[in-house]
Amino acid sequence: MMTHEDNSFLTETDSGTPMGSYLRSFWIPCMVSGEVPAADEAPVRLRLLGEDLIVFRDSAGRVGVLDQHCPHRRASLFFGRNEECGIRCVYHGWKFDVEGNCLDMPNEPASSTYREKVKAIAYPTRERGGLLWVYMGKSADLAQFPDFEWLDMPAGHLYASRWEQDCNSIQAMEGELDAAHVSFLHRRIDRLDEKKHSLSGSYFQVDRAPRWHVKDTDYGFIAASQRDVEDGQSYWRMNQFLLPFYTMITSEPGNARMTRMWVPKDDEHCWVIAVNFRAEATLQESELRAWKNGDTTHRKVIPGTTQPLENRSNDYLIDRQLQKTVSFTGIAGVRAQDAMVTESAGPIVDRTREHLGTSDIAIVRMRRRLIAEARTFSDGNVLPVAAQRGELYRVRAHQAVLDRDKLFDQEADVVAAMRS
Amino acid sequence: MMTHEDNSFLTETDSGTPMGSYLRSFWIPCMVSGEVPAADEAPVRLRLLGEDLIVFRDSAGRVGVLDQHCPHRRASLFFGRNEECGIRCVYHGWKFDVEGNCLDMPNEPASSTYREKVKAIAYPTRERGGLLWVYMGKSADLAQFPDFEWLDMPAGHLYASRWEQDCNSIQAMEGELDAAHVSFLHRRIDRLDEKKHSLSGSYFQVDRAPRWHVKDTDYGFIAASQRDVEDGQSYWRMNQFLLPFYTMITSEPGNARMTRMWVPKDDEHCWVIAVNFRAEATLQESELRAWKNGDTTHRKVIPGTTQPLENRSNDYLIDRQLQKTVSFTGIAGVRAQDAMVTESAGPIVDRTREHLGTSDIAIVRMRRRLIAEARTFSDGNVLPVAAQRGELYRVRAHQAVLDRDKLFDQEADVVAAMRS
Amino acid sequence: MMTHEDNSFLTETDSGTPMGSYLRSFWIPCMVSGEVPAADEAPVRLRLLGEDLIVFRDSAGRVGVLDQHCPHRRASLFFGRNEECGIRCVYHGWKFDVEGNCLDMPNEPASSTYREKVKAIAYPTRERGGLLWVYMGKSADLAQFPDFEWLDMPAGHLYASRWEQDCNSIQAMEGELDAAHVSFLHRRIDRLDEKKHSLSGSYFQVDRAPRWHVKDTDYGFIAASQRDVEDGQSYWRMNQFLLPFYTMITSEPGNARMTRMWVPKDDEHCWVIAVNFRAEATLQESELRAWKNGDTTHRKVIPGTTQPLENRSNDYLIDRQLQKTVSFTGIAGVRAQDAMVTESAGPIVDRTREHLGTSDIAIVRMRRRLIAEARTFSDGNVLPVAAQRGELYRVRAHQAVLDRDKLFDQEADVVAAMRS
Repeated sequence: MMTHEDNSFLTETDSGTPMGSYLRSFWIPCMVSGEVPAADEAPVRLRLLGEDLIVFRDSAGRVGVLDQHCPHRRASLFFGRNEECGIRCVYHGWKFDVEGNCLDMPNEPASSTYREKVKAIAYPTRERGGLLWVYMGKSADLAQFPDFEWLDMPAGHLYASRWEQDCNSIQAMEGELDAAHVSFLHRRIDRLDEKKHSLSGSYFQVDRAPRWHVKDTDYGFIAASQRDVEDGQSYWRMNQFLLPFYTMITSEPGNARMTRMWVPKDDEHCWVIAVNFRAEATLQESELRAWKNGDTTHRKVIPGTTQPLENRSNDYLIDRQLQKTVSFTGIAGVRAQDAMVTESAGPIVDRTREHLGTSDIAIVRMRRRLIAEARTFSDGNVLPVAAQRGELYRVRAHQAVLDRDKLFDQEADVVAAMRS
Repeated sequence: MMTHEDNSFLTETDSGTPMGSYLRSFWIPCMVSGEVPAADEAPVRLRLLGEDLIVFRDSAGRVGVLDQHCPHRRASLFFGRNEECGIRCVYHGWKFDVEGNCLDMPNEPASSTYREKVKAIAYPTRERGGLLWVYMGKSADLAQFPDFEWLDMPAGHLYASRWEQDCNSIQAMEGELDAAHVSFLHRRIDRLDEKKHSLSGSYFQVDRAPRWHVKDTDYGFIAASQRDVEDGQSYWRMNQFLLPFYTMITSEPGNARMTRMWVPKDDEHCWVIAVNFRAEATLQESELRAWKNGDTTHRKVIPGTTQPLENRSNDYLIDRQLQKTVSFTGIAGVRAQDAMVTESAGPIVDRTREHLGTSDIAIVRMRRRLIAEARTFSDGNVLPVAAQRGELYRVRAHQAVLDRDKLFDQEADVVAAMRS
Repeated sequence: MMTHEDNSFLTETDSGTPMGSYLRSFWIPCMVSGEVPAADEAPVRLRLLGEDLIVFRDSAGRVGVLDQHCPHRRASLFFGRNEECGIRCVYHGWKFDVEGNCLDMPNEPASSTYREKVKAIAYPTRERGGLLWVYMGKSADLAQFPDFEWLDMPAGHLYASRWEQDCNSIQAMEGELDAAHVSFLHRRIDRLDEKKHSLSGSYFQVDRAPRWHVKDTDYGFIAASQRDVEDGQSYWRMNQFLLPFYTMITSEPGNARMTRMWVPKDDEHCWVIAVNFRAEATLQESELRAWKNGDTTHRKVIPGTTQPLENRSNDYLIDRQLQKTVSFTGIAGVRAQDAMVTESAGPIVDRTREHLGTSDIAIVRMRRRLIAEARTFSDGNVLPVAAQRGELYRVRAHQAVLDRDKLFDQEADVVAAMRS
């Protein structure tokens, strides 16, 4: 349980809030690169941390992320003309480059210097790892980029997608850090024994109340779960939480790795961005086909939108007959199942009325860490450690079967496997 | 007219409000039994007095009414699995019985006793008189059931239905207590003389400004209207208001009797539940057909919903040509006419701007009585008299033609006819 | 820029606000006469300055504008019966004439005098100039009608239409007073030279940063713009702002003249009413056809509604390909372009975040004038000068080409042309 005040502190990210200022001290992934329009094409809208923005690519290929409202009389630049290295407001022709500089102010006298005094709100951007990133804080020059191993992979090694979830980003991310739910929410009830002796598979059913080991790090923490399985062994999963909103869930051996991002759209909606990648080889046709179809680690959306097909308004297309015979929920798709449990708790879950158990330890640690960090760094004048040291992000999630008396971080090969 | 403060006091029923606590000291009818799912079928949603609940029937046939949110991390139990005498949250498998006891907490270690400390919010239920009833207050063991004559009638003697009205329950109920409007709102203009000399019929047109006699009782009051008709006689209608939200309107001799209930869904919407019954005989095919079609004392709803077909969004399908030639309103159906006048006053009528007349006496008495009762009993620690004495509810509405100098309650046969 | 307090003062017009009281000291145009139902036909709804009203025409042809809610228990008179010189509430048959007098109260005893004490809220009305006008203030007897030249024109000389704009009326009107935007927002990019040497035409492109001369008058002000064109001459446009919400934009010679009105529906929506007229001749078939089609100075609406076809919900049907090749915006229709820039700034533009330039002088003067007037006259007990002297409104907009060293108001023929 939590006080009402802490819950608000944790979940509110508009400009000027402590958590909002803390998040703005990091580079923020906000869109898949393929969603950014081509050079000189029309801008698109983006809502991020409660701010209404537009995104466009100028003639030189640079991406601009600007406040949606023209600084003159606040007409929307979404309707603007993207022409010759700048976006031009159609109301009076004021033109801004990707840095917010006013390049032209044709309704002012030729002698006027007013143009030099007016700036549009513009945020620095980067395109890396198949994503668009933006820096919305004060220290763009100082903040380091999180050095994920997938940032500069060659073509064909990485797939990324983005969708919207209709709840606060923190509770969406809690659904990911909460590894205990895998034994229930995502359970098949028609083939319990099928995947027996795969590394995960039926291990989730053999021991559904794992012991938790959360290990703090400079970048966040490792959430390790230990399940007792046959022959005196333990099945370990080491998932990663990386400040301020990244998660890495361990994949099956041979499968592509992944990183997920839980970015506030506003306090009642968030963007989920999922990246799958293979460091050693190109992605397989079959997995690309599945992801583009919204399966497994991605989500099926209504074409041309970021709105998932299974959503709150249609009760996630729950099939009560399937729920009796095939799957624990009767809802198709792991991501839709996650969205259902997190969204159905309300736009911002009332944490004053929770009853947390032992399996919630990772969630509690994440909340406390974010609150403590935001208390310390919310003025944005000193950068958080993780925002200053990009190399901290060169980590991986991992899983292993160890003798029951071993701890994951005492095994050299396990520790090595968690560095990228 | 009323002060703004009194109007809020009268109309607000969320948990913690004085009127909400008062209502919660009574058993509350909330659904037709046929709307409750069968044993082990999927739960349904119910919003009641501003609370979001789910309703399910367990393997033993008992009905559970629980807070929609799982006490763990507040995922919705609407998506839960109804299995083996309990509803199981699909997030982590916590399972609750109809009393809110936690039967299983499979993500906790086997040795944990946490399960015994966690309870879901659950309200005691009863199924009687074709309805589901719930007790949302502190004194379920003490509160008596209102002993309506139709509670235990054999099959075929009773018909019940439920629909939604898009306004506060008090103003919806005012439309029922307001017998004066029958001479206008429900008037046919194409056949004024047709029902002449039926007990009601054209009497409503002979005298449209009746004299009112409101007689207080332990259960509420009798609202009697006296209309002067031919031959030195008076036509009397004795309607009943029973605390906290029941009404009985007198029926034509030979017709089925009825009781209606005006139950808050939340402060801006209410449930109307209508029961028709015959103590002496089974209901007739023709009347059942009419009621199921939403005619006369019931309401036509969009199939599969509780939403009336004629509603605010479609201006109640008013036909202005019919309004000129056939009926006073041009709106089909007495219940839709009632809904139109009460809903069109706004979600919560602004009683500071009313101008009440002599025909509003029953309404004024109802408001004052509810406010006085709620002031006295809102802590819920002492039960209101009517909540303690179920036998008070063994009454009937009645109508009679008396000599003009008689009062209804001085006539022994009239008084006897008003007991069930 | 503006303080938040001034912005609220300027834009809030509900009953009881200072600006609302100021506006209510004037006659207010609210509907096209053709939209008012015929005698004894059903009433229609009208929302004006945040008040919900109904409009009906009685048996004698008089128009009533009444509070939507019956004074008795506040059922909507929209569902009422319009019969024999009054509107009758269908709840209890109370009947009101166009002045709000209660003509009948049939549910009260015949001896009652209550009827004489109850009045419906009713506003005096006039039908002139093809429009319905209403007086919502205290001084209907004293306020003079604005004596526009088109008020009493014979049939065939005048065309009027009304549509809704989804923003505050002030920012909608700013789009009209802002003559600088014509060089940009409404620009064609496929035929820059086509209209060269018409009075307006390419002059807007020859000099896109005109000098502004705003001249205060008793009725508002003249906003004159001076553009330097060829041969040592200036192109002048003299537009009119008339208190509290009228504009006159100069027409091309030979074209019909026009007056537009920017009337609050509520604080986040406004009615735009446009009147075109010819004093000397009847309107031409071709221009009537265009206006009825929603072209040029009028707006295309969804049939049977006041909702424009191109609107916020459909991004004004912007065509990005046309925006590249044909028009500055890619949006069809000058009025839709105006709506896009004003609505896209938000329901009430945040004037604390503007950056005004030299071309905004007329807008600034309008704001200051309205604020000053409302400060002085908001109690409504003394009428503003413009509300007392209808003859002030006998003015016209005008345009002229003058030698570059002349000012428009020093030329006798220009000054004469600006009187109607």
